[in-house]
Amino acid sequence: MSTLIEPRTLQGFRDYPPALMIPRERVLQTARTVYRSYGYAPIDTPTLEYADVLLGKGGGENDRIVYRFKDHGERDVAMRFDLTVPFARFAAVHVPQLGTPFKRYAMGPVWRGERPGQGRYREFWQCDFDTIGTLSNAADAEVALVINDLFTALEIPNFQIRVNNRLLLNGLLESIGVLDKAVPLLRSLDKLAKVGRDKVIEEMTADTEVSVEQADRVLKLAEATGTNEEILGAAEASFGGNPNEKAREGLLRLRELLSIAETAGVPAERIRIDLSIARGLDYYTGTIYETFLGDLPGIGSVCSGGRYDNLASLYTKQVLPGVGASLGVDRLLAAMEEIKHPWMTGQSTPAPVLVLQFENTWLGHYQRVARSLRAVGIGAEVYPDVKRLKAQFEYADKRGFKVALIAGSEEFAKGLWKIKDLVKREEVTVTEAEVVERVRGIM
Amino acid sequence: MSTLIEPRTLQGFRDYPPALMIPRERVLQTARTVYRSYGYAPIDTPTLEYADVLLGKGGGENDRIVYRFKDHGERDVAMRFDLTVPFARFAAVHVPQLGTPFKRYAMGPVWRGERPGQGRYREFWQCDFDTIGTLSNAADAEVALVINDLFTALEIPNFQIRVNNRLLLNGLLESIGVLDKAVPLLRSLDKLAKVGRDKVIEEMTADTEVSVEQADRVLKLAEATGTNEEILGAAEASFGGNPNEKAREGLLRLRELLSIAETAGVPAERIRIDLSIARGLDYYTGTIYETFLGDLPGIGSVCSGGRYDNLASLYTKQVLPGVGASLGVDRLLAAMEEIKHPWMTGQSTPAPVLVLQFENTWLGHYQRVARSLRAVGIGAEVYPDVKRLKAQFEYADKRGFKVALIAGSEEFAKGLWKIKDLVKREEVTVTEAEVVERVRGIM
Repeated sequence: MSTLIEPRTLQGFRDYPPALMIPRERVLQTARTVYRSYGYAPIDTPTLEYADVLLGKGGGENDRIVYRFKDHGERDVAMRFDLTVPFARFAAVHVPQLGTPFKRYAMGPVWRGERPGQGRYREFWQCDFDTIGTLSNAADAEVALVINDLFTALEIPNFQIRVNNRLLLNGLLESIGVLDKAVPLLRSLDKLAKVGRDKVIEEMTADTEVSVEQADRVLKLAEATGTNEEILGAAEASFGGNPNEKAREGLLRLRELLSIAETAGVPAERIRIDLSIARGLDYYTGTIYETFLGDLPGIGSVCSGGRYDNLASLYTKQVLPGVGASLGVDRLLAAMEEIKHPWMTGQSTPAPVLVLQFENTWLGHYQRVARSLRAVGIGAEVYPDVKRLKAQFEYADKRGFKVALIAGSEEFAKGLWKIKDLVKREEVTVTEAEVVERVRGIM
Repeated sequence: MSTLIEPRTLQGFRDYPPALMIPRERVLQTARTVYRSYGYAPIDTPTLEYADVLLGKGGGENDRIVYRFKDHGERDVAMRFDLTVPFARFAAVHVPQLGTPFKRYAMGPVWRGERPGQGRYREFWQCDFDTIGTLSNAADAEVALVINDLFTALEIPNFQIRVNNRLLLNGLLESIGVLDKAVPLLRSLDKLAKVGRDKVIEEMTADTEVSVEQADRVLKLAEATGTNEEILGAAEASFGGNPNEKAREGLLRLRELLSIAETAGVPAERIRIDLSIARGLDYYTGTIYETFLGDLPGIGSVCSGGRYDNLASLYTKQVLPGVGASLGVDRLLAAMEEIKHPWMTGQSTPAPVLVLQFENTWLGHYQRVARSLRAVGIGAEVYPDVKRLKAQFEYADKRGFKVALIAGSEEFAKGLWKIKDLVKREEVTVTEAEVVERVRGIM
């Protein structure tokens, strides 16, 4: 025993005690339920992979942030830094048997050795869903439906899904002759909300051979406001009413997405066309999604994604176009805490009922009644020690139990139970046969 | 593009495609539901920790199997090899605020660089629950109830929880003067079922200064058969009817556990006293649990655990006794596959209903009807492409959908839907308002 080891955790990593973990499990379970309801199937892939499989040809940002080491067999291995690269590797291996279209979701931690900060961790959860193996806009429209149903199920009162299409942006860049500079231009455009118009124009014209007039054309398109139809009309107008092929396809897909969502019953205010969102990654080629919380716009998008032309080109010649999005679980939880979301109760028990203990003679009976509650889906814990009632009630308060059940020799002699509503501070005495119904009534 | 990277996985690691992942999620969700119903609260801890925190004073088996490396900041870090050590570290940090008793569950992958083999992986899931901060036998009895409710909820038809108490074994060792050799003796005893009586006696007497008579006494106790009460009676008799203090306490706790379980309504055949199970670890000090599948005893215990005196002595002076057990998820899934458990359907869709696509004009309507099914908890996927019906039905068969919904211009003109039961190969035509009820009827 002698010297103790200091129980410290690594910087950028954290424990989830019950009060944090209960809402996290609820968010994940909600996402799982919504994804499944659309037919996305769960998959999982290893945490560790060969480093060259995860890093591809290398040379990018990922080389710097990845946790990489030699394993027991001197293999060069790395921990996954996202769920997309492992999905691409998985698809190359399994899609030949599984067939297309293939819809999957995946949830799990990923690791990035970046500088940690406010709400930024080195270990954090991703929660992705994708449809691959189809070019159909049906899959794109569905992503917007999934996000809508997800945030509705998450009881987020005031969210907005912003949608754009890279084809429209690229169509404009093509029409003004700067399509070859799409990557830096769209990366600059992405900063519009953060740094403002002047800085974006400055960056666009400094970093590339783009003129102020050209940059202005891009920004005009991005800044279109009004109803969805007005924005799409303004986009058309910016092509002199005659969009090129790329832009026409982009407009068509956006209009179809809106129409499907409307017919399917998504409230009109949920989906907004926003031609300023470009998403930094050069990866995306079609529809783009971001999701903002009306009560906390500053936190940024909590669910983002888009359409891509080819998922797994590093590993296979099979062309796998797809579309999907990813829920930022940790960012969402931080936001839910900030907006005092009703799920952030601070409760640290998943069971609402505590059965107090008078004498250990009655333990079998305590557990029998607790099991009758569990059988109807009401969690019930039996306090393990014979302690003063005051200590047991303090425990109930601290954990956030809603109901206490109390019975000692006197009650057992008469077949009675006391039920105490710990929120209203009311107590009733009932027969054992009535316990389940009365407790259900309090819930 | 040029050369492709071979999409290989590391030896001892594996992908979970949907047909494997769907049952795994169901098992985990079942465990979560049962643990929660007893008031065990979820926690999570980081995958990576300081190596000295995970390995303690070192020198054990864990040093050899752990994945350990230097991170970006040259810190000596390691991936967790179980969920117990991180829980001990967590308890040292958080229990002072959280208070005791503290009941937690944790689920997640752990990593061990061991030689992989049949059903043995380098990455596998653990699924633990524990109550710490109490010596009360109420917590020990509850572990048996949890295991019973868990395997019942898992729809395992024929399982048996075997229970022993180290106090009884240690009492016997003390009474015959070999308590100081408890660790090697119990480790040998643990092999009884595998290697047989003679080999165990050989090992006991070869490795230690134990006589054949002493070894025989231990084996006689371990081999007691009959009803639970007969076994406990035989144990008492092996002390000449006058057990020493340790043995008396062990017998008392076993009898109380049986009595609580019986009163609480656990079927008598579920819990068997088995004085031969010792569990290799020197960690355990009281009640011990193993769980066997009647249909597949050879696979070994699929849920094991026990009571320990002090969880977190490496990190804190706070003494934290506790009791718990761990579900071996991967071993259980392998067993479920072997016994053709009804959950192992081979299905690779989590949604039972597929809405076929005739024309993309109707996508909004397809999604509207699909959403009405999702709203009542019935998963419904909309096929994304306009393809021949034959191809869409093949997709439905391959994935394991149960019901297809079919409507084209003709049906929409009349407000009708065709519902095809893909199992019974029957088709009915109904109005849109009837779809949900009819599909529910088929489920």
